[in-house]
Amino acid sequence: MMVYETENDIIVIDTGFMLPNADMPGVDLILPDIHYLVERKEKVRGILLTHGHEDHIGALFYVLRQLDVPVYGTQLTLAIASGRLREYNVLGKAQLNTVAPGDTVELGDFSAEFIHVTHSIPDTVSIALRTPVGVIVHTGDFKFDMTPVDGKMSDIQTLARLGSEGVHLLISDSTNAERSGQTPSERSIYGTIDNIFQKADQKLLLCTFSSSLHRIQQFINLANIHRRLVAVTGRSLINNVRIASELGYLNLNPDYLIDARDASTFKSHEVMILCTGSQGEPRSAMSLMALDNHPFLKVEHGDTVVMSARIIPGNEKAIGNVVNHLLRRGAKIYHERNANVHVSGHGASEDLKLMLNLLQPKFFMPVHGEYQNLMRHAELAESVGIPSENIKVAEDGELIRLTPETCKIFGREGRSGRVLVDGKPDIELEDIVLRDRIQLSEEGILVPIIVLHSDIKADTSGTDNGGSSENMPTGIGAVDEIIQTDLPPKTGLNAGQIEIISRGFVYMDKSEELIEEAKEITRRVVENLSDEQKHETQVVQDEIRSALRRFFSKQMQRTPLIFPVVMRV
Amino acid sequence: MMVYETENDIIVIDTGFMLPNADMPGVDLILPDIHYLVERKEKVRGILLTHGHEDHIGALFYVLRQLDVPVYGTQLTLAIASGRLREYNVLGKAQLNTVAPGDTVELGDFSAEFIHVTHSIPDTVSIALRTPVGVIVHTGDFKFDMTPVDGKMSDIQTLARLGSEGVHLLISDSTNAERSGQTPSERSIYGTIDNIFQKADQKLLLCTFSSSLHRIQQFINLANIHRRLVAVTGRSLINNVRIASELGYLNLNPDYLIDARDASTFKSHEVMILCTGSQGEPRSAMSLMALDNHPFLKVEHGDTVVMSARIIPGNEKAIGNVVNHLLRRGAKIYHERNANVHVSGHGASEDLKLMLNLLQPKFFMPVHGEYQNLMRHAELAESVGIPSENIKVAEDGELIRLTPETCKIFGREGRSGRVLVDGKPDIELEDIVLRDRIQLSEEGILVPIIVLHSDIKADTSGTDNGGSSENMPTGIGAVDEIIQTDLPPKTGLNAGQIEIISRGFVYMDKSEELIEEAKEITRRVVENLSDEQKHETQVVQDEIRSALRRFFSKQMQRTPLIFPVVMRV
Repeated sequence: MMVYETENDIIVIDTGFMLPNADMPGVDLILPDIHYLVERKEKVRGILLTHGHEDHIGALFYVLRQLDVPVYGTQLTLAIASGRLREYNVLGKAQLNTVAPGDTVELGDFSAEFIHVTHSIPDTVSIALRTPVGVIVHTGDFKFDMTPVDGKMSDIQTLARLGSEGVHLLISDSTNAERSGQTPSERSIYGTIDNIFQKADQKLLLCTFSSSLHRIQQFINLANIHRRLVAVTGRSLINNVRIASELGYLNLNPDYLIDARDASTFKSHEVMILCTGSQGEPRSAMSLMALDNHPFLKVEHGDTVVMSARIIPGNEKAIGNVVNHLLRRGAKIYHERNANVHVSGHGASEDLKLMLNLLQPKFFMPVHGEYQNLMRHAELAESVGIPSENIKVAEDGELIRLTPETCKIFGREGRSGRVLVDGKPDIELEDIVLRDRIQLSEEGILVPIIVLHSDIKADTSGTDNGGSSENMPTGIGAVDEIIQTDLPPKTGLNAGQIEIISRGFVYMDKSEELIEEAKEITRRVVENLSDEQKHETQVVQDEIRSALRRFFSKQMQRTPLIFPVVMRV
Repeated sequence: MMVYETENDIIVIDTGFMLPNADMPGVDLILPDIHYLVERKEKVRGILLTHGHEDHIGALFYVLRQLDVPVYGTQLTLAIASGRLREYNVLGKAQLNTVAPGDTVELGDFSAEFIHVTHSIPDTVSIALRTPVGVIVHTGDFKFDMTPVDGKMSDIQTLARLGSEGVHLLISDSTNAERSGQTPSERSIYGTIDNIFQKADQKLLLCTFSSSLHRIQQFINLANIHRRLVAVTGRSLINNVRIASELGYLNLNPDYLIDARDASTFKSHEVMILCTGSQGEPRSAMSLMALDNHPFLKVEHGDTVVMSARIIPGNEKAIGNVVNHLLRRGAKIYHERNANVHVSGHGASEDLKLMLNLLQPKFFMPVHGEYQNLMRHAELAESVGIPSENIKVAEDGELIRLTPETCKIFGREGRSGRVLVDGKPDIELEDIVLRDRIQLSEEGILVPIIVLHSDIKADTSGTDNGGSSENMPTGIGAVDEIIQTDLPPKTGLNAGQIEIISRGFVYMDKSEELIEEAKEITRRVVENLSDEQKHETQVVQDEIRSALRRFFSKQMQRTPLIFPVVMRV
């Protein structure tokens, strides 16, 4: 998400979400922190979308719940975005405005022109913003595909014209800045896939992202040529194929489409199954098939599986596991590392230089990528002649001031960055909860619970044991008794029932002895406290905790998180 | 770890450990399950080691604790292995026997010949086992480096002689089976590193595995040429450099060695720092420097960092984070993806085919790799003429029977596979504890605690509320009272104090209201139970759990793990 602001107006480009890494257990979604916008909500004139990928539109439902502003995007982008808006009940109030490449929208101090560019999803645009200080071009995701599957080239003419007229600031996609050369055309994989179709004599499973519609178009074309019926499985894939077909972005003869539930009733060499799960997601069709857990699809000996997608860093292990399981079932597997079955939708070094040279901007900011990609993109900009002092590498939350003469990072917005979501997206998951989760998972938890009750028949000589008689509030105690008659006298506190709950530390069914010993230690700790100490819950807890820590670290050389609870009766 | 067994004798080749993945929170080490060996301990004649990498020797301390058997390995391998044996107090009783390439050791029915091969650590051997059914060659890790740094080629002559005499079964390293061509020589990176030395005008930090002694030798040679002093940091690296220098496997002039603590007292262009942390390990020198947390080393603007190691799948994110932080500090970074600074120690397809062709085995088993690597290695074997029915792809725990005529997988050892260790290596971490940890980390935990006490002044009309009077054991209750005189009457149980402990679910300091409401729900649940139900702890727990689940899933759309505790007084 990028925010552009003048004295009077704010516009927003893209509102995406991120998926969590393995080091964020139980986090479902990462959304942008939009406090900055909510605090200035009366200035926000609109949200502009560049294309229909979740990392650009996925947070729209969340933003529109808090900001009632118009949204502008191309037909396919808005159609895909509508799905999630409906799911979260914000579609009704959303003001969605369809734009086409070439259109211009006026939003307060800004005028936004939409320019078609090629990417892995159709109907992608870059945005040229006319602002009081000059023209800003925000590329969004792009590559220069010279032979796009849908025949629609990036609008190089418009980009060149903007360059001639003068671009003040270019903000460009850095995803593949570290790759040399030019990203090959989407069509470049066609031959390999065609060959795989020719060799496949049983079921053919093609796995890609549900939004890779150019890829899906090529698969469907090849299925027609090789006389295979097409079965689509996976909710997002079915939705996107339906939307794209209805809007004419996908050319699919419905006669060749079969229900995936019926796939097994056809001969295996007559079927192509289109599915998701290229990242080894545990609940995806592909993972379920790999473990033979899919309700109605099966991978059998001799079947062919094509994982036609990028291996996203961090997912290698999960993908490797799926591949191993598919191989154990006797399938033949093609993936980006052993065959030319995937090509990126993001431009590599030469594409990025071409964009820089078309636009010849005065200032440049690389965005969209890890810091190392941004740095590399900055080097590329320098190599085509942008002075290094005119290149600004900024990170999430940083504030940049653009004037007719300067472009400077001048600060950082405190409330920015990410909002972690587990479950309901209105309820943020605090960072502290995430830290707790990680600690729980590394150490386990143990909750010793002790009932402390005042024994009416208590032997008062017991108070001597703790050596605390000198600290006893004797006289005051008597006054207490008079004032608070229904409280038990503050003496003779004894440890009653003791329970221990533990998870993620030891297997309790097999560690009865250890737990019994821990209970006994807890009891002894309490019994050895003076009555005064027993009245201080914090003291009781601390003493129990440290005694159990000593015990476990001696017995197990590790300790769980320990949270003692004192119940008083 | 591989076990070879005849009717009378068992020998073991290698005993390695694995490091845990991100999906194994709190696991420190993964050891081989050696129940099979312990049950047959009187048959075990010895352990043979191929080389000094942890995935081949790291479990020796654990195995020797349970088996009192001789160990055979080359000088460097045993020297490195001794470190951990000392650490775990098993060095004293360990029977370590140094062998040299060319030596043969007789162990019952087996005769083992050690054959030098090249790998990323010196003193690596393959092992030719003469057995009653024929010769088995176990390659261990290897590549065919034609220009090794230490000048010691793989012993192709001996391998060829074995091939001529007849090899019954080859068991070969599959790590790089999916890579085409031949793995380049260790020397192939020299030019690139030389160039980096030439360009570096400030501090130079070289990061590699502590066991990559050929790599370290090249770094040291270049430091001498470019007149940089060498500072080594990291315990394992310091140990290995010391051992290898003492034994003559590393040629290091001690005059050029400085203490890393003094590095900052020299001019930055006069220093080379050798460190670990190529995998982004959080407590490694490199990670600490990246975050400016290292006690005495600092990465500064203009410094050069070389990550001269493989990016192990699963570590991409962690490594990427370290790289990003180093870049933010203004360092120049070289790694395997942007420069030729690393080469593998494992043979690629053509090396593997050469091994197959040198030995011309009757039977073949690919080992050491993911299932996809084993499958690819099997294809390579077929491509050089091994009949597919003579190729066996087995996995951990499978039992293979080799006769003069056949090689068959005939079963699986039940107690085999991995032992997860957290803390003390004698205490295994049960799989169920690991599952608990993962669940804890994804959902968090909530422990509601309730005190149930029999109120002597209880209003008996309360039993009508639950509508349970018809279920009351009236007559029997009376008998109970007579028999168990010191038990409170089984009526009038009331909910006393209620506490809720929660971690990893909500941030308790900010969710007081939610927790108070949960307490109130817990109280109401208990109050609405009949007295009979209240006597059944399981019933009380189930009712509390399901009421809180309903509450949280409505309020938060997610629920923690809930473990209610009933304390009776």
